[in-house]
Amino acid sequence: MFGKSIYINRRKKLKDKIQQGIGLFLGNEESPMNYLGNTYHFRQDSSFLYFFGLDFPGLAAAIDFDSGEEYIFGDDVDMDDIIWMGPQVSIQQNAEKAGVENSAHSAKLGSFLSDAIGKGRKVHFLPPYRGENILRLQELLGISTASINDSVSTDLIKAVVAIRSVKEPCEMEEIKAACATGYEMHVTAMQMAQPGVWEQKIAGTIEGIAAAGGSMISFPIILSQNGETLHNHDHSQYLKEGRLMLTDAGAETSMHYASDFTRTVPVGGKFTQKQREIYEIVLAANNEAHKLTAPGVTYKSVHLAVAEVIASGLKNLGIMKGDVKEAVNNGAHALFCPHGLGHMMGLDVHDMEDLGQIYVGYDEEIRPSDQFGLAALRFAKRLEPGYVVTNEPGVYFIPALIDKWKNEKINTDFINFEKLDAYRDFGGIRLEDDVLVTSSGSEIIGERIPIEPDEIEEIISK
Amino acid sequence: MFGKSIYINRRKKLKDKIQQGIGLFLGNEESPMNYLGNTYHFRQDSSFLYFFGLDFPGLAAAIDFDSGEEYIFGDDVDMDDIIWMGPQVSIQQNAEKAGVENSAHSAKLGSFLSDAIGKGRKVHFLPPYRGENILRLQELLGISTASINDSVSTDLIKAVVAIRSVKEPCEMEEIKAACATGYEMHVTAMQMAQPGVWEQKIAGTIEGIAAAGGSMISFPIILSQNGETLHNHDHSQYLKEGRLMLTDAGAETSMHYASDFTRTVPVGGKFTQKQREIYEIVLAANNEAHKLTAPGVTYKSVHLAVAEVIASGLKNLGIMKGDVKEAVNNGAHALFCPHGLGHMMGLDVHDMEDLGQIYVGYDEEIRPSDQFGLAALRFAKRLEPGYVVTNEPGVYFIPALIDKWKNEKINTDFINFEKLDAYRDFGGIRLEDDVLVTSSGSEIIGERIPIEPDEIEEIISK
Repeated sequence: MFGKSIYINRRKKLKDKIQQGIGLFLGNEESPMNYLGNTYHFRQDSSFLYFFGLDFPGLAAAIDFDSGEEYIFGDDVDMDDIIWMGPQVSIQQNAEKAGVENSAHSAKLGSFLSDAIGKGRKVHFLPPYRGENILRLQELLGISTASINDSVSTDLIKAVVAIRSVKEPCEMEEIKAACATGYEMHVTAMQMAQPGVWEQKIAGTIEGIAAAGGSMISFPIILSQNGETLHNHDHSQYLKEGRLMLTDAGAETSMHYASDFTRTVPVGGKFTQKQREIYEIVLAANNEAHKLTAPGVTYKSVHLAVAEVIASGLKNLGIMKGDVKEAVNNGAHALFCPHGLGHMMGLDVHDMEDLGQIYVGYDEEIRPSDQFGLAALRFAKRLEPGYVVTNEPGVYFIPALIDKWKNEKINTDFINFEKLDAYRDFGGIRLEDDVLVTSSGSEIIGERIPIEPDEIEEIISK
Repeated sequence: MFGKSIYINRRKKLKDKIQQGIGLFLGNEESPMNYLGNTYHFRQDSSFLYFFGLDFPGLAAAIDFDSGEEYIFGDDVDMDDIIWMGPQVSIQQNAEKAGVENSAHSAKLGSFLSDAIGKGRKVHFLPPYRGENILRLQELLGISTASINDSVSTDLIKAVVAIRSVKEPCEMEEIKAACATGYEMHVTAMQMAQPGVWEQKIAGTIEGIAAAGGSMISFPIILSQNGETLHNHDHSQYLKEGRLMLTDAGAETSMHYASDFTRTVPVGGKFTQKQREIYEIVLAANNEAHKLTAPGVTYKSVHLAVAEVIASGLKNLGIMKGDVKEAVNNGAHALFCPHGLGHMMGLDVHDMEDLGQIYVGYDEEIRPSDQFGLAALRFAKRLEPGYVVTNEPGVYFIPALIDKWKNEKINTDFINFEKLDAYRDFGGIRLEDDVLVTSSGSEIIGERIPIEPDEIEEIISK
């Protein structure tokens, strides 16, 4: 964990924003795979990590926003724990590491909260996303599981989002480290992109690189020669000459900061002309996104400008037609890129997604759209220095979606459906970089993973 | 998945054992890491997999034990699912793969169950271990989370345990494949066991081998130069010359069958004399366990015989003293081996641990002990052909435990505490193999991972 002053300072910012009630932060519990004792890699809740830094299960924390007092609740270990888990420090010592003055046994949390509720005080808590913590809230606060979502504190959500959105220098060091591991993962995947190789073998190997780098993957790896399936976690195919392999993968550091990159490469090392033409469009879109990502502009405007690059490129190939701006206004490009340009990244790969996209990506100024494609934009707000976002434009040919639009005559003014037939088996291309919004523009974090088509061909062919 | 006849036959065995009520099998849901959309590797519930074979989230199944009718409940995909997850087959088609005649929308499960309950019929279900399924049972059956554990069906548990305990030939093929991946993991770990190497780098690398082999690790990797901590998931140290690295790790195949091996090797490749002396004791214990594992004998008797090998070896070194049999009767060896000799293995690395150790490892004949050490024996029953168990004897020097026994004068007749002082920094050694109980004895599954000290020294020194 960072030094305690980091956490004290973050909580001070929170206390500046909220003056009343109790802030309750539940840490995560172990998450069982196939029985209680067989658990996945422990992943602490990100907001708990951000404000308290303690990275093990069985914890809760509270901030009394009226008095400013802070508390860590947890349990000390016994001899059995020492035999099985090794010597551990006391809960009091752990609280001190986070700069928290008060610590108490877990069993005290219930009465602490019911005392506060009894006095008519509000308990602020963030939206739970794991069954175990929903059950815990039900028990601690005496509210039914069905009504927990109505009881979350939007004040606390907004305060946390405001603070966590702007990355501190110590956080940027971690994100850089995560990006360095991501670099190694992607170059390894490129080197393995040969005909006959099992997708799972590549996905597993780069997952190992993430783990060897300190912790684990930051999200389930997407790796497939069917890149047109946006979140393709099926890795059962064997790579074929002539296909493109899309890899969307990143690492988490041991402090749980994320990276998230996508590269798409030709199996065997040689783009066909058709592949290279589409690739160049996506590369231009990625570069345009980087150029436009800057403080003061809305990310929605970047998304739309990049959509024009894509539409314009596809028009040049005869796949789209008509006026490019009008096509984008009508969402016609979304047939080829049904997702948003990118998202915030930090302790979570989609940063703070547990707190709600509406609070993280939108505000009073920028409201969500319900247009197909634009509705999938996770982040749209005006950018500020210190924000970290990923730019991940893509072009996909999704047969089921093409058929639907063709049959339902959607955006026929802008799509050349005959021309499209030749692309049904193309797959998809996505190119994603992680960028930091600076005071004057944006910078790609760490060394850029090879992205020029010639560069990629050389890596694979070696 | 296997062919449908396998699942039909397994369910037939279940129906032969239970004639009344409804058997409810909840599949697992996705398990979120840090927000709902960011999930761990999906791990289906093992009993669901065993009886229905379908390996994706959002499913439930039911067997009407009176009529014999079987049902799969799940949802068909929509266009959005196709865009993000790719084309999927219908729930009806999935039911057919499992040889199940009836399928229905998830939403029907509630009324299906309340109809049955309304008619006074019993709903048999297995113990839930994930928060999400506890919440689902609460909603489906209208029982409070606190009383769910009292409502599980011991009839169903016992029937499932009886069937799953004896492995079928198709299961042995999978376990062999898991063992082959485990072999590669352990040899790689040995090769990396050099001074200055970060434990996490080795643990991560072999986790990648498990993933590249088809799926994932079968349990959180234990890898440490502090092998005396039995479940040491801390991999933060850098290996030092003179220490022993203990690695307890295994893989799961894509069908989720497990392997589980432990090896302990000298960092840098050369055992000290002291290390080799203890190593030879553990190796003799492992070999004795293999020799004694055979149909008709109780695993408890194997555990105790192996404990005598350990006590006798430690007596030869002057660490223990007195009569060996008496020492074991008094549990004195448990200072050095506080855990059980082994456990069943199959779809779960501790097979069926979710169903309860008391049903899996014990029966009317063999009852659990509360003696320190023996109480930790997960499996004690009389062995039958087709059982798969791991034999994992170990010798550990746990300073906190040694101090406790010394201070509380526990088993002073059998322990030479002065002599022990020289071993406080020793660490621990465990050697674990996976064996199949055959009609005449037992066989190590797959190629045995190098275990002779000379062999290991050669691998590391290469």
